[in-house]
Amino acid sequence: MQFINKTAPIGIFDSGIGGLTVAKRIISMLPNENIVYFGDTARVPYGSKSNSTVIEYAIQDAQFLINKNVKLIIVACNTASSVALDSLKRKYNIPIIGMIEPGASLAVKKSKNKRVGVIGTNSTINNKAYSEQIKTLDAEISIIEKACPLFVPIAEEGWLNHEATRLIAIEYLQEFIDAEIDTLILGCTHYPLLAETIQNIMGEKVTLIDSGYAASLQVENYLEGRGVRNDSHQVGTHQFYVSDLPNKFKTIAERFLGSKVNHIEKIDVEILIKN
Amino acid sequence: MQFINKTAPIGIFDSGIGGLTVAKRIISMLPNENIVYFGDTARVPYGSKSNSTVIEYAIQDAQFLINKNVKLIIVACNTASSVALDSLKRKYNIPIIGMIEPGASLAVKKSKNKRVGVIGTNSTINNKAYSEQIKTLDAEISIIEKACPLFVPIAEEGWLNHEATRLIAIEYLQEFIDAEIDTLILGCTHYPLLAETIQNIMGEKVTLIDSGYAASLQVENYLEGRGVRNDSHQVGTHQFYVSDLPNKFKTIAERFLGSKVNHIEKIDVEILIKN
Repeated sequence: MQFINKTAPIGIFDSGIGGLTVAKRIISMLPNENIVYFGDTARVPYGSKSNSTVIEYAIQDAQFLINKNVKLIIVACNTASSVALDSLKRKYNIPIIGMIEPGASLAVKKSKNKRVGVIGTNSTINNKAYSEQIKTLDAEISIIEKACPLFVPIAEEGWLNHEATRLIAIEYLQEFIDAEIDTLILGCTHYPLLAETIQNIMGEKVTLIDSGYAASLQVENYLEGRGVRNDSHQVGTHQFYVSDLPNKFKTIAERFLGSKVNHIEKIDVEILIKN
Repeated sequence: MQFINKTAPIGIFDSGIGGLTVAKRIISMLPNENIVYFGDTARVPYGSKSNSTVIEYAIQDAQFLINKNVKLIIVACNTASSVALDSLKRKYNIPIIGMIEPGASLAVKKSKNKRVGVIGTNSTINNKAYSEQIKTLDAEISIIEKACPLFVPIAEEGWLNHEATRLIAIEYLQEFIDAEIDTLILGCTHYPLLAETIQNIMGEKVTLIDSGYAASLQVENYLEGRGVRNDSHQVGTHQFYVSDLPNKFKTIAERFLGSKVNHIEKIDVEILIKN
């Protein structure tokens, strides 16, 4: 492992805006860290693309962040984490933290009745990303997985408390209730936006696992353990890059983060491909 | 206009699978024509991308079809039609038929009370594609436009008769009922799949305009008028190309078209870019 510069930024990438729920966790947990966020808004969503396409895009996204001299990369996209994390770790020599292992570990720790549910995009669920990870941690846990493809567009439409959202959530979640799970992994970075509706349907006894939160804890532990936290007393800078529609991203990011986005820049996809 | 080979195929492109509702119309209206369909499934959806990105992609898609020696191109995607049709017509010397003008013309013809509604993706609606076209045809018509971004994912999820779909449709359509429109343009090629739900909410007196159907009529008229219909007595061949996930596309296409898809091939995005 190479020398790590404490003041170097943390890199975060996602297929679009969902990773902002992870960025928000990092900003609140590690306020002095500098952050470079890349949202691949020209090629969103990744969840409906083939594995080989997602790996190719994830490598381009990571390379962009590495060119910005980040000290660590968070793959704030469950699809890219489930499909591309191994390829990224083989290719690059800096710490790379995805969503799957942190979310799975926290779920295993929290579940008492050993019945865990996972919801995510088609790609994350079809790849059995969480279930395979959970099995390696505790083979006795029974797992139910289900893709919920309408949750992302409904979260992006902002219908967080609409009756249609409740009906969609009931349709998706009924089988988890029937199976009496006690822990549900929100396996997509958009889903924390719907946490209130999901919690109401699942009931108070079910623990929701926000994988972005679990990953942020691991980032904090890693930086602490290696002694490479940014020990500046100033609040960190936060730079955002997208591959399309920077103004739309800025509006949404300011709503998600609850603070002003000062640096937002558009990067052409061609530049990502050529890097 | 160059010489047109009667037996050359009709080219159809879309950002993904929505254009299959148009292909289905063409196949049923013109069964002897050969068809080459390109679905840009690696870069779907176009509706949330910037105009410059959509123009770039549409040119690559059209070039792919031109390399297949098509005699005419149907832009079976409302977003690409609204954003890129002029650029395509300037660049290429073959007939190119989009969704907007055919749909707008048919709506103007059908409306009696001169109150027309338009629903579509964010991009089609923000570009005011239909309203500007309608204004040039009949300046007295009053137009209401609304983006319905949840209709595409709900149609792709196949929840055509779900109560949540009805509630989402009511939320989107109530203002059209209040405005007493008598004609509603389905300004996205996915929306005909939801026509029954939309018709039930709007009531029988409102005419739904399927732009793909309107465009198919124009294609038939054009080929007839120029004497370049394929006069073979054999049923035409139908070739499908996609930029990602050919197997998934094949399954959906066979469901949409109600017939076997024999030729399906994946084309790398890099090849589109280099063409």
